Amino acid sequence: MQLFYDPDIKPGAHLLREQEAIHAGRVLRKRVGDTLDIVDGRGGWYKGLIDTIDKRSCRVVATLVRQEAARGPHRLQLLVAPTKNIDRFEWVLEKTTEIGVDLIQPIFTEHSERTRLRLDRLCRVVESAMKQSLRAWMPDLRSPLPFAEALQPAPFPGEKFLAYLGDRSVPLLKNAYVTGTNATIAIGPEGGFSPDEAASARRLGYVNVSLGPHRLRTETAAIVAVQTIESANW
Amino acid sequence: MQLFYDPDIKPGAHLLREQEAIHAGRVLRKRVGDTLDIVDGRGGWYKGLIDTIDKRSCRVVATLVRQEAARGPHRLQLLVAPTKNIDRFEWVLEKTTEIGVDLIQPIFTEHSERTRLRLDRLCRVVESAMKQSLRAWMPDLRSPLPFAEALQPAPFPGEKFLAYLGDRSVPLLKNAYVTGTNATIAIGPEGGFSPDEAASARRLGYVNVSLGPHRLRTETAAIVAVQTIESANW
Repeated sequence: MQLFYDPDIKPGAHLLREQEAIHAGRVLRKRVGDTLDIVDGRGGWYKGLIDTIDKRSCRVVATLVRQEAARGPHRLQLLVAPTKNIDRFEWVLEKTTEIGVDLIQPIFTEHSERTRLRLDRLCRVVESAMKQSLRAWMPDLRSPLPFAEALQPAPFPGEKFLAYLGDRSVPLLKNAYVTGTNATIAIGPEGGFSPDEAASARRLGYVNVSLGPHRLRTETAAIVAVQTIESANW
Repeated sequence: MQLFYDPDIKPGAHLLREQEAIHAGRVLRKRVGDTLDIVDGRGGWYKGLIDTIDKRSCRVVATLVRQEAARGPHRLQLLVAPTKNIDRFEWVLEKTTEIGVDLIQPIFTEHSERTRLRLDRLCRVVESAMKQSLRAWMPDLRSPLPFAEALQPAPFPGEKFLAYLGDRSVPLLKNAYVTGTNATIAIGPEGGFSPDEAASARRLGYVNVSLGPHRLRTETAAIVAVQTIESANW
């Protein structure tokens, strides 16, 4: 199954975004009368019957097949420090989108080695992973924020976790997380969060958790954290 | 903490492997009297007091600090089809080593798009991930085998799982796996295992399992499977 993405799709006649039209016409050689599976990134699944198509444009007559009210019974927000090597951060986006996440907030922290991000390219990574994993919800990839700002109370009730390396007595995330509840999890850079950052987070209700007995790279920690919470809800 | 690897290390005077000696002397600028943490890849943790060092060689007096009898209470074997894009397969090796695995058997299957592997480079990826995650056990990365050969009874008792996309009624791996037991898990290529391959595996005691409700890429499936079994044992 090949999924198309168009945030503006709605029932009725619709011109697909150029990028998706090119993919349908030039790459997949779709023809008039063929049907495309299209998602809007907000839970809407559409069938699009191709009406007219050439190498750069594609018009479909769209029907809403299903509207998912949410990605799942819980909501998962990931605060994560971009890695110095951008490929590793793209992997975080791709893999957490595949496994399942609602919001990704890049954070710049005291020990961050990377202090700039090109969001346009990263958005394409997320879009492609959403389609690849046959999902109708696009994770909300936010512009980066300093950690202190990102820590401000989230606009939804839920548990807040901080993956902290400085303390071996903290509980495992898999034991701390209560299945079905909303969660925010913060993952620091390779050097970890500073003690000050961890203290600020604690004051705002964040609970220190461990992701297992071994040292994990930032990108592995992010994937393990998301997988831990998602799989608890399967 | 910076870990060094030398499979030949033993108590007493020892010349480090050249690659590790260069890292200690030229990169980290270690001096006589400094101590290195060295693992042998088979559970042995050593302290190595530097005796003589220059830019290309390093002699230590080694003391065995701890001998781990095994990586963990259970054993985990991963059969996995290398991805067409070798970077994605290197990620499988790096991430599963970080999370925890004992043996990695690359397999060539009916739908495999890649039919050759350069093991030397891949061994370096595994070694580097072992050191990065502060582990003393090196996963045993095997030479690739055709799937039919790799399926032959493993030399240890344990559960055998096959991640199979063709059947939606199969149990989730997290529910099928019994904590503490040895396990082998087989992950197919992007096109999945063929029905014939799945049937052969079933005849040899493999149980079909699901890795969750969404389509995962091969490399994501491998990481999710290993994380599912490892985290059950934390």
